[in-house]
Amino acid sequence: MQKPRNDRPEARLPKGFQDTGPADARATARMLAAIREVYESYGFEPLETSAIEYTDALGKFLPDQDRPNAGVFSFQDEDDQWLSLRYDLTAPLARYVAENYDRLPKPYRRYATGPVWRNEKAGPGRFRQFTQFDADTVGTESVAADAEICMLAADTMERLGIARGDYVIKVNNRKVLDGVMEAAGLSGDENAARRLIVLRAIDKFDKFGAEGVAALLGSGRLDESGDFTKGAGLDDKQISIVSGFLFSEHNIRGYEVDASAKHVVPDDELRNERGWFYSNLNTITGLAQFVEGTEVGSAAISELEDMFKLISAAGYGSKRIRFDPSVVRGLEYYTGPVFEAELTFKVTGEDGQPVRFGSVGGGGRYDDLVARFTGQRVPATGFSIGVSRLLSALKYLHKGDTAAGTGPVVVLVMDRTELPRYQRLAQMLRQAGIAAEMYLGTSGMKAQMKYADRRAAPCVVIQGGDELAKGEVQVKDLIEGAKAAATIKDAKEWREGRPAQFSVPEAQLVEAVKGVLARHAGDPQ
Amino acid sequence: MQKPRNDRPEARLPKGFQDTGPADARATARMLAAIREVYESYGFEPLETSAIEYTDALGKFLPDQDRPNAGVFSFQDEDDQWLSLRYDLTAPLARYVAENYDRLPKPYRRYATGPVWRNEKAGPGRFRQFTQFDADTVGTESVAADAEICMLAADTMERLGIARGDYVIKVNNRKVLDGVMEAAGLSGDENAARRLIVLRAIDKFDKFGAEGVAALLGSGRLDESGDFTKGAGLDDKQISIVSGFLFSEHNIRGYEVDASAKHVVPDDELRNERGWFYSNLNTITGLAQFVEGTEVGSAAISELEDMFKLISAAGYGSKRIRFDPSVVRGLEYYTGPVFEAELTFKVTGEDGQPVRFGSVGGGGRYDDLVARFTGQRVPATGFSIGVSRLLSALKYLHKGDTAAGTGPVVVLVMDRTELPRYQRLAQMLRQAGIAAEMYLGTSGMKAQMKYADRRAAPCVVIQGGDELAKGEVQVKDLIEGAKAAATIKDAKEWREGRPAQFSVPEAQLVEAVKGVLARHAGDPQ
Repeated sequence: MQKPRNDRPEARLPKGFQDTGPADARATARMLAAIREVYESYGFEPLETSAIEYTDALGKFLPDQDRPNAGVFSFQDEDDQWLSLRYDLTAPLARYVAENYDRLPKPYRRYATGPVWRNEKAGPGRFRQFTQFDADTVGTESVAADAEICMLAADTMERLGIARGDYVIKVNNRKVLDGVMEAAGLSGDENAARRLIVLRAIDKFDKFGAEGVAALLGSGRLDESGDFTKGAGLDDKQISIVSGFLFSEHNIRGYEVDASAKHVVPDDELRNERGWFYSNLNTITGLAQFVEGTEVGSAAISELEDMFKLISAAGYGSKRIRFDPSVVRGLEYYTGPVFEAELTFKVTGEDGQPVRFGSVGGGGRYDDLVARFTGQRVPATGFSIGVSRLLSALKYLHKGDTAAGTGPVVVLVMDRTELPRYQRLAQMLRQAGIAAEMYLGTSGMKAQMKYADRRAAPCVVIQGGDELAKGEVQVKDLIEGAKAAATIKDAKEWREGRPAQFSVPEAQLVEAVKGVLARHAGDPQ
Repeated sequence: MQKPRNDRPEARLPKGFQDTGPADARATARMLAAIREVYESYGFEPLETSAIEYTDALGKFLPDQDRPNAGVFSFQDEDDQWLSLRYDLTAPLARYVAENYDRLPKPYRRYATGPVWRNEKAGPGRFRQFTQFDADTVGTESVAADAEICMLAADTMERLGIARGDYVIKVNNRKVLDGVMEAAGLSGDENAARRLIVLRAIDKFDKFGAEGVAALLGSGRLDESGDFTKGAGLDDKQISIVSGFLFSEHNIRGYEVDASAKHVVPDDELRNERGWFYSNLNTITGLAQFVEGTEVGSAAISELEDMFKLISAAGYGSKRIRFDPSVVRGLEYYTGPVFEAELTFKVTGEDGQPVRFGSVGGGGRYDDLVARFTGQRVPATGFSIGVSRLLSALKYLHKGDTAAGTGPVVVLVMDRTELPRYQRLAQMLRQAGIAAEMYLGTSGMKAQMKYADRRAAPCVVIQGGDELAKGEVQVKDLIEGAKAAATIKDAKEWREGRPAQFSVPEAQLVEAVKGVLARHAGDPQ
């Protein structure tokens, strides 16, 4: 059946895009301001680049004429050059650094936040526009930069109200994984594909546990639904090296006592049920055996040791920043330390099932992005927060919060010829720093009260003929009123009690409203 | 001559796009936060929509296959539907309201800020991506909404530090112009083209003055370069009506005394050299004669009177919000009141010439945007700030401000084996709320000092072998040092005086740095 012809466009968004209403928009703004504060305290400075870049500058080469939009949103400029919407904040940073290298302070610390776009299939929780918040240090090989980024990430989580122990910054080093591969005889171009399978298996630790990973390193793994995933096909010796590195008693799952280390804040260390605490440095040193004889592995162990010495000296223990050999990070371009910010607290989802948020950010060292432009290798390291993911976690964390009473005070309109008078009342409140508005519609009292409720007004201001004659205004406390409504059963009792409604002389309006706001300042929000 | 082949992409931005460095990014963030504060105080709530919309939802119809990018950046989705980057924040609002009409509080007040994109030729000061900040009230015909928007605009200017008298919110009404046209016999479809020429002529008042406008209303105007612009070809009677409306003694240029009006804040009124003050209400009433006998004109006069009664009752005089019959506003879709926020102060540009900033925002009533989707007419009014234009004005206004001493404290690296110790010093400062960083590069002392200068560090912290042995740190005040360098001529004197450099026990580092910051808190910045 054909739908009737309609020339009007449909009011709808393309799939994978979304609108953000007042509660989330305000929460996001607060969150971004808090993150910015922490980043500024570490000496990072803001940089804003445009949403559109030349496609080749983003590292995507001239797209096929058939599929100009693979992965990124692209279009041709009037001179036929391809432009794209940025798909992350790192590629524009690389372009910016290459373009302005000589006049930048070096090392160059910058932070940036803004939307990025992916031209991919949208799905639940998978958007085609989302916001990132990045910090990067460009122009130094020193692992002090990586250590600092991890501390920055930990400070950011706590600044956002996530308690110590409810998050962890996990750290690994790509080179140490390279060393393990080499020790297991998996180096060389001919093993590239297998190395990728091994990395993918390691990455699955959180999902499948030690046994699942071991199966994926060997012949393969059969899941509950009966699907079989082919494994890397390592022999027993190879598996024991990789598994040993991942699951030995020298790592997170064995909490070694470190009696010799002088920890600045021992309370900051993760402890197991026997009271032993987990030492990053001890673990790393203990893992040296699994990369023995490989140059890249030894270098990685030494980098990790240097990094954790700095972290430890600054007072960050394993509760906050933790070496974890199972961290892989997908992106190919990482060349050294990799980090992952993970939320570890559990909450109950709307369906009653426990929800774990997992990773809300990550990053690492990437040394080759700028070289693409200039041929000159410029070392860099960075960290990126997935803003909407972190926001949903914070929303669960502060679930009791509601918007009750957080809207503007609404001045009701009792007589449309008196608008200037009502406008002046609203203005009096605003000048006293109280968000206030005059009702602008044409509906009656009942609709106006409903409007005030929908706007989450803490109170309304009423000036009818009676009040006007006496030079008074009525203030009706909507929060108190809602509480009273929950206990009062009788309409008569309600009318007589007139809960939470009182008159004051017009000159005392500001004071009266401030009183209402102060009364509820301690309410659970 | 052919350039040598180079496979590397060039690091550059497409024309019309720009990067924003730390000073401007911070100033913009501060400005946006201040605007947001004012908008929230009027009960506007934030809405964020995505950058990408269906092209038809934005009101641009299916582009030609040949020129898919006329005006807006557009691309086809995988199902061949056209998508576009938003070119303003009003079209997405219309889509949002149409899509969510039933569940929105009505009237619906929302603010929004973000980048918009125009696929136009870039030029000096003409960008293809720029930021807007909008406030709109949707769902009420009441001119109280328009009055409120004008007050909001005035409050915003003052919140940004623009003094009363250095800006003005100019107000007109499209319908009053329609009335003047009708009174001059220019109504009807057959005069549509001429009306457009007349509007364009009126719009040129700021540029060409009364005489220039009169010429453009008649046969035409010859400019200094000898170019002739054809006029609207009005006869003398018609010109006298339009000119009378624009330039009579009943308007801004004649400052009528209004003895009868009860002005709340007479000091807030514009005065001329004879001490007469300009009354919005008196002017509007006086102009009624020029629209006599036209229904639309009378309605407009009455709307303007109602609007200025509200504005006046809230205490805003003609210094802040002013009726100005020459305001036209280009966009076709305005249907009633129109506003323009104009900066009136003059500054001297870099070339020594006086610069006038002119319009930094504008808006008005538009009643037909939502009807495009639903067929239902939804009245709306709004105001949009051009963020970068306003920012450049603020930069001129606060020209004395520099970034001296506004960067992080830099902890210098004297001995690379002591990095953990330096990192801990930086961490001590950060925990005390002071932005601080350890130098992350590998260069020597001189380069580190240069780096600290480029970062606008207020001071550096130095701990060499001598200090370490004594458990001390040196603090070097860079702001004081720069002042001393300007007066001390002799290298010997400098070495002996060691201006602005002192040692303290390590435990007193935070206190010492706070002392340096406090010392310069009153400096002109």
